[in-house]
Amino acid sequence: MHFFSDNATPVCPQVMAAMAAADVADHGYDGDAWSARLDGAFSDLFGTPVRALWVATGTAANSIALACLCPPYGGILAHEESHIMVDECGAPGFYTHGASLMSLPGDGAKLSPETLIERLKAIRPDVHQIPARAISITQASEYGRVYTPEEVAAIGEVARDHRLDLHMDGARFANAVAHLGCHPGDISWRAGVDVLTFGCVKNGGMVGEALLFFGSQADARASEAARWRKRGGHLLSKGRYLAAQILAMLEDDLWLRNARAANAAAAALAQAVPDRLLHPVEANELFIRLSSAEAASLRAQGFDFYDWGEGAARLVTNWAQDAGAVQPLADALRSLA
Amino acid sequence: MHFFSDNATPVCPQVMAAMAAADVADHGYDGDAWSARLDGAFSDLFGTPVRALWVATGTAANSIALACLCPPYGGILAHEESHIMVDECGAPGFYTHGASLMSLPGDGAKLSPETLIERLKAIRPDVHQIPARAISITQASEYGRVYTPEEVAAIGEVARDHRLDLHMDGARFANAVAHLGCHPGDISWRAGVDVLTFGCVKNGGMVGEALLFFGSQADARASEAARWRKRGGHLLSKGRYLAAQILAMLEDDLWLRNARAANAAAAALAQAVPDRLLHPVEANELFIRLSSAEAASLRAQGFDFYDWGEGAARLVTNWAQDAGAVQPLADALRSLA
Amino acid sequence: MHFFSDNATPVCPQVMAAMAAADVADHGYDGDAWSARLDGAFSDLFGTPVRALWVATGTAANSIALACLCPPYGGILAHEESHIMVDECGAPGFYTHGASLMSLPGDGAKLSPETLIERLKAIRPDVHQIPARAISITQASEYGRVYTPEEVAAIGEVARDHRLDLHMDGARFANAVAHLGCHPGDISWRAGVDVLTFGCVKNGGMVGEALLFFGSQADARASEAARWRKRGGHLLSKGRYLAAQILAMLEDDLWLRNARAANAAAAALAQAVPDRLLHPVEANELFIRLSSAEAASLRAQGFDFYDWGEGAARLVTNWAQDAGAVQPLADALRSLA
Amino acid sequence: MHFFSDNATPVCPQVMAAMAAADVADHGYDGDAWSARLDGAFSDLFGTPVRALWVATGTAANSIALACLCPPYGGILAHEESHIMVDECGAPGFYTHGASLMSLPGDGAKLSPETLIERLKAIRPDVHQIPARAISITQASEYGRVYTPEEVAAIGEVARDHRLDLHMDGARFANAVAHLGCHPGDISWRAGVDVLTFGCVKNGGMVGEALLFFGSQADARASEAARWRKRGGHLLSKGRYLAAQILAMLEDDLWLRNARAANAAAAALAQAVPDRLLHPVEANELFIRLSSAEAASLRAQGFDFYDWGEGAARLVTNWAQDAGAVQPLADALRSLA
Repeated sequence: MHFFSDNATPVCPQVMAAMAAADVADHGYDGDAWSARLDGAFSDLFGTPVRALWVATGTAANSIALACLCPPYGGILAHEESHIMVDECGAPGFYTHGASLMSLPGDGAKLSPETLIERLKAIRPDVHQIPARAISITQASEYGRVYTPEEVAAIGEVARDHRLDLHMDGARFANAVAHLGCHPGDISWRAGVDVLTFGCVKNGGMVGEALLFFGSQADARASEAARWRKRGGHLLSKGRYLAAQILAMLEDDLWLRNARAANAAAAALAQAVPDRLLHPVEANELFIRLSSAEAASLRAQGFDFYDWGEGAARLVTNWAQDAGAVQPLADALRSLA
Repeated sequence: MHFFSDNATPVCPQVMAAMAAADVADHGYDGDAWSARLDGAFSDLFGTPVRALWVATGTAANSIALACLCPPYGGILAHEESHIMVDECGAPGFYTHGASLMSLPGDGAKLSPETLIERLKAIRPDVHQIPARAISITQASEYGRVYTPEEVAAIGEVARDHRLDLHMDGARFANAVAHLGCHPGDISWRAGVDVLTFGCVKNGGMVGEALLFFGSQADARASEAARWRKRGGHLLSKGRYLAAQILAMLEDDLWLRNARAANAAAAALAQAVPDRLLHPVEANELFIRLSSAEAASLRAQGFDFYDWGEGAARLVTNWAQDAGAVQPLADALRSLA
Repeated sequence: MHFFSDNATPVCPQVMAAMAAADVADHGYDGDAWSARLDGAFSDLFGTPVRALWVATGTAANSIALACLCPPYGGILAHEESHIMVDECGAPGFYTHGASLMSLPGDGAKLSPETLIERLKAIRPDVHQIPARAISITQASEYGRVYTPEEVAAIGEVARDHRLDLHMDGARFANAVAHLGCHPGDISWRAGVDVLTFGCVKNGGMVGEALLFFGSQADARASEAARWRKRGGHLLSKGRYLAAQILAMLEDDLWLRNARAANAAAAALAQAVPDRLLHPVEANELFIRLSSAEAASLRAQGFDFYDWGEGAARLVTNWAQDAGAVQPLADALRSLA
Repeated sequence: MHFFSDNATPVCPQVMAAMAAADVADHGYDGDAWSARLDGAFSDLFGTPVRALWVATGTAANSIALACLCPPYGGILAHEESHIMVDECGAPGFYTHGASLMSLPGDGAKLSPETLIERLKAIRPDVHQIPARAISITQASEYGRVYTPEEVAAIGEVARDHRLDLHMDGARFANAVAHLGCHPGDISWRAGVDVLTFGCVKNGGMVGEALLFFGSQADARASEAARWRKRGGHLLSKGRYLAAQILAMLEDDLWLRNARAANAAAAALAQAVPDRLLHPVEANELFIRLSSAEAASLRAQGFDFYDWGEGAARLVTNWAQDAGAVQPLADALRSLA
């Protein structure tokens, strides 16, 4: 049983079925019937007008989002361990044509209003220094931590006060909503988020994430984003298969049901090893203390996962698991002690 | 029956089956078993060592290819009606960080050695002018014309003489090989092509084209291309589904069989209206003289296609058709006269 | 006596004196007393509010201007022989992050409204094609031809009708005004020009051109330009020496007096060889038919200039000459026949 | 008497004289007699073959240097308070097309081998992370600290061991050499520096810094740099005036004499307030504790300088001062206590 990554998991059956249903002749690019339904579907889900574009990957979604918010001479405040900072080989710098990622610390890979304000104060408003133009936060964070609606709103307020835009990397947005039990709008547009990368692939999709624009500038930004999408080579010629996947995720709250299953699996594992946890488990990732001998023992029992530096490991659960499915690993973890 | 574009066509069954077969847990990105087989599969097909990368789209494949061949201050010689020039919203300029596309004329959207040489002569070798660094040709061309092996080789010779690299946009490479009945190597590496965009989506795929590097610099360029792919957001997290599609296209020469069917359909239509042809039909595209009244009449009979300016139309056949399948349109075309 | 280029000429004495006068301690970059006077000086000269920035070169001025007018995915319509197209090694593509220069023909290196309109019509308004966003014209042109106020206004109207911005490369703007005898506003802001590269170096300066913004967006664009200037490394730390040069050019109409002298010199040469002229002489450049034997003969007499392809030559006069000073060459040209 | 910045100082007389001497007709750009002498002059000075290019500013020199060393997907290790990091509005990101500046701490704005090695260890060698490709150090540092030859060599060794290139921002290189009393080669090419920004403007020049390439790749990099220079708009059309300034700085060791004077002035001030120093004074900058009352008192006596945060000030001496000239400030500082 593998706990490498939610990327390593198969596609969920409803998504496969949706692609089969879309396997008909239709107009190319985003001129098809499925793509045309995206704006409406996301507007319904979020309870506000939304402009939605599919793109091939989360890296593309994040980068295009940031390119719409920040000029080449601007800066984007983000956590020093965020995906855009350390795992995208500079893709945001590519799409923004050289904007700077401004690295900030924070517990659990989360940013705090205080850290943001302190950093913003240190920037001289002259032409020699890079002006901050956007904040990017990750929900759930790289360490599986979840911002509450109040925490997002507090950051949204910092953004508004400093005339910055706010981007949310929601590769695991579903897991965050599942954890909080809130309305998706509560941690996005109602809390000041301007652009959201709504992740699907880690949550059961095959190819395709949704890039969502909220607010009064949504139309202008979506038009701009459509240009970056084309220039980035992300306007797939058979886009209906992407749109169909995303729509399938929204149908009957599949996105939430999948995330709840993954979260429940992670919670079950966390309960097994409360003393080993390096971070509270709020989504579908566990970071635990684990000696190399212990890791070897687990692997010998058929459990696969990544080491996380010396003496630690990362375990990621997924939509295809739930509390019951991971019981064998929970038991194995318990018997380590 | 639609003749809009090969993009408007469904995915062929073997490709759908291959994705279903790949729907298992495996490592993310290109760390999976399917991606690992690409180099070998293409090396076998082309009869020479090949480095192969999947990317999401032809636009990305072309742009990444050119970024590997041309520095930001360089120029790329291409036909004035080529896809990279008029249909990619400047994507090559994005990936190359501002390299110039040098526009050239040519019958049937094909370049000739003479035109290339004349343009190259006009460039002063000082620092004020943009030095040409690459040639990009399209096989089959935007007008469905096919370069013979000798024609590609003649351009390859111009490239070698001027120390330029040669890229081939092979969105319809399969149709060209099917037309020529040659070995795929005859119009690629043996004729001096350094990098080939090997198209799959127009030929029955869903998402994913192959970017192929030949020759002594293949390894270095593929490593560089892997960086551009990541930075461009094209390193899909579940890459196995792309690799599986591409491998399925190669299995039992599916790529050639699909292309032959599409070509045969186009030939059948061409035979029906020899006097209307604006270009010889060599691949799966027809450009014909057609008055608006005639176009309306065909559409009333259920045939869909795009106008091509005033008094002309473009008809594209696809893998799901063949000579028999398009008989109704052939008949309708004949009865126009 | 050299007729290579106005760049090959020494700096005029008033400019040298101005630099000596500025050789005192003052704040760095553009925080000095001289830089602070630029907006006012140009506003007075043009009879409208102007925002003015010095930059080191005309290439930088043109490129920064275009970066303020055109997004990376946009296009700039310009003459196929314009400086930005053929003599700046892609600098506009660098500063605009990949915008496309859209090449157009035109007599005397001048654009016509008709050519512009025809090209604009051919652009489909979808996301696949590069949208035009700006027009760039050169006054005087690469062939020393001058747009009349009516001609500029006609192009300004095309720009307005198509929601494009209009840039003027005025490396030899002074020569054009001197030729026309008009107010500088007549061929710039009154005729629809949004941004003007006001050339100084060819006209007697050492280092430094002025980038001028007109109209309601002048402030916003100048702020943006200040960022590009810094990022491009053009915010010189001792900017006062540049500002002083530019102010000296404006003092007592030095810019016009210098240009008139150069124009008069060119006119005197043109009168000597009316039958050899390849283009009417309106500024300070002559393009004449000249065999290699004739060129050799002139060079043997001490006249230096550049060949202009086979059987032709370019002669550029400058601020330090006038009709009298070039009499020896005029005589030599006359005696060729 | 001002201690704002060495940029605020007039140009030294020898440089003014050199520009006057160059005020003759010559070929444009870098085709003149002065530019042709640069390689030789710097090769003599450094005792090794050097390729030298003038550019307008230090920001341009640094950025072009880094563009020659680092691809768009690479990273450049530099101090968190270095000029390229905090005072160039992202110019290195512009010229490198998006390379990342990797921020490191270090006493006195100097990097240590240990910090570099630790950071390099943390980079995974996969395609998701940005690979380090260059190190950039500043000599003298932002806090007026000087790397000894041994310290530079130790960093050069880290670079070599990790296949990185080493850039030195030598805006105050002269002050460093003057302090160390070493050969300029000892802290540059002999210690592993590949590219050096040799500063002139802070040291008495008007416009123009030299970009120096050492080693086996010097020719290839200088050719590449010449393209960036042109594309960046830094190939001035009357380049002879820049080359003449730089040559004047080298004549009779003017660069060293100027730097020694500035250093001596700083040393004299340092001796006056040994207990106030925030950093040892090794070049021409003092950072001292100073209450706002004390600062006000000094300003009332006619001494100008910048505050450096709360309770501190920065004082910069320059070529036009020496120990004697700054005696009044030394006295004033002494009497504060």
